Amino acid sequence: MLMRTVTVFAPATIANLGPGFDVLGVAIEGLGDWVSVTIRDEPGVVIESITGDNKKLSLDPAQNTAGIAAQEALRLIGVSDVGLSLRIRKGMPLGSGLGSSGASAAAAAWGVNMLFGSPLSKQRLLHASIVAESVVSGWHADNVGPSLFGGFILIRTYDPLDIIELPTPFGLTFALVTPEMELPTRQSRAVIPQEIPLKLHVAQSGNLAALIASLFGGSPILLGRAMQDVIVEPARAPLIPAFEKVKASAFEAGALACSIAGAGPTLFALCDDAITGAIVAGVMQEAFSTYGGLRSSTHVARVDQEGARVVG
Amino acid sequence: MLMRTVTVFAPATIANLGPGFDVLGVAIEGLGDWVSVTIRDEPGVVIESITGDNKKLSLDPAQNTAGIAAQEALRLIGVSDVGLSLRIRKGMPLGSGLGSSGASAAAAAWGVNMLFGSPLSKQRLLHASIVAESVVSGWHADNVGPSLFGGFILIRTYDPLDIIELPTPFGLTFALVTPEMELPTRQSRAVIPQEIPLKLHVAQSGNLAALIASLFGGSPILLGRAMQDVIVEPARAPLIPAFEKVKASAFEAGALACSIAGAGPTLFALCDDAITGAIVAGVMQEAFSTYGGLRSSTHVARVDQEGARVVG
Repeated sequence: MLMRTVTVFAPATIANLGPGFDVLGVAIEGLGDWVSVTIRDEPGVVIESITGDNKKLSLDPAQNTAGIAAQEALRLIGVSDVGLSLRIRKGMPLGSGLGSSGASAAAAAWGVNMLFGSPLSKQRLLHASIVAESVVSGWHADNVGPSLFGGFILIRTYDPLDIIELPTPFGLTFALVTPEMELPTRQSRAVIPQEIPLKLHVAQSGNLAALIASLFGGSPILLGRAMQDVIVEPARAPLIPAFEKVKASAFEAGALACSIAGAGPTLFALCDDAITGAIVAGVMQEAFSTYGGLRSSTHVARVDQEGARVVG
Repeated sequence: MLMRTVTVFAPATIANLGPGFDVLGVAIEGLGDWVSVTIRDEPGVVIESITGDNKKLSLDPAQNTAGIAAQEALRLIGVSDVGLSLRIRKGMPLGSGLGSSGASAAAAAWGVNMLFGSPLSKQRLLHASIVAESVVSGWHADNVGPSLFGGFILIRTYDPLDIIELPTPFGLTFALVTPEMELPTRQSRAVIPQEIPLKLHVAQSGNLAALIASLFGGSPILLGRAMQDVIVEPARAPLIPAFEKVKASAFEAGALACSIAGAGPTLFALCDDAITGAIVAGVMQEAFSTYGGLRSSTHVARVDQEGARVVG
């Protein structure tokens, strides 16, 4: 007998990790979205409820990443005689750069696959989630990839879709600080230069290659040195008040690196243990308040190694 | 008592490995340069003889990478009361893209350091070699780095100089084919675009990151998939007659990847064993002859893991 309902949690993620613009993302423990998927007798997908979104998200399944991912997963499985009902609980701030839309998509796709006995490969699940993500923020896998599979995920190419799971250095901790401000992804993408000087391309390449080496080598120190972004961060930093001050405060408190999470405005700092992470998050919050006049929320967490999973 | 003479071998290298333009190089077994360094009583560096260069290289130590590297190493060690005499034997074709000038620089710097009891760190030796390389082909370490230290070498940044030694997948073999033609490095560099579309930067980044992961993961298959260069190879390929035909023949014969070594005109093909390497080198040579009307020489070899070493 098939289950009628499953509840899936999928973690928050950080994409555009330093020099890894559009190719690298990581899943974060302790923040994420829950999606309950229930089989219903009529075909089609409906969204029954959304909580935790301050009424900002649409209940129209064609406008919601969970709805679209569920529909796409159904289509890939080849189910057309029954439909699905979704209940969504957002567990992280929307529009903060932590992959909120991607987590809902990943949770929904994972849930549908589970309900029907896991007929879809990882690759197909990822595809369903990318289709959903594309409706709200373009054809990207650097949020949905780690939200589905956990850990650090590299997207080598989209055509063919080729993703690589990377190891996580022991102890690595992220301090996340989300200032209370609006920063539309559209605006954040608009400032990225469409042409890159060769010199910056080479500098970014050296750091990206070193970053990947640091993950395999288990070296948080090298990871910190390599987490430098000379292309995207300089373009986006002016959109975030007091960015330079907050970043400087993170380094002073012992962070190994600090940059913008996804399209922002959340900043992340890399730390090599949880205690330093907590201190760093505190001074960053303080700096946002002092120099930017912004309230902010903080979260200190390790890398989520599991990705999407059934929780009920 | 100090030695009076030492002879050092330093291997040929491939720089600009696929997506690793200016940041990645590898040392190759069985090809390279020999430099004999002898202490002499008068200060200064002289070049006594050069063989294997078809009389193309200058005996003026200020115009020769071995001479410059020896002088720079002397300076770093702080020796000014005695001088050096060099004898250079070139063991690879000049101007072929296999790091000939870099190998002579690496061998000379290594030899001087050995003669004086190894006072210089790897970092300083590398610096001395880069100074020499810069006179003939710009401020690069992607040839001198692997020639000095062996294996795959990543140059994260030049300022500060930060190099990372990478592992080599088991069995990995390079088939090298050098057509008999002139391709000045200046010309080869002049065709590289100075502005890169963001999209190509992202594509190159995905492949470079996957290439580094493949070295750690020991996967020649992933290495082959990732060895794609969408920026430099398309610009340089038209400078090498029959490039596309030769590349296609390499794949048909079982190569995992094929691209241009350094600034060319040597092409390299990646193979996962020596037997395939020999077959691939043969068909590439044939293709150069049939479609490009060019004679060529071949070399099939594994990665040199040692780098510069004393051989006498």
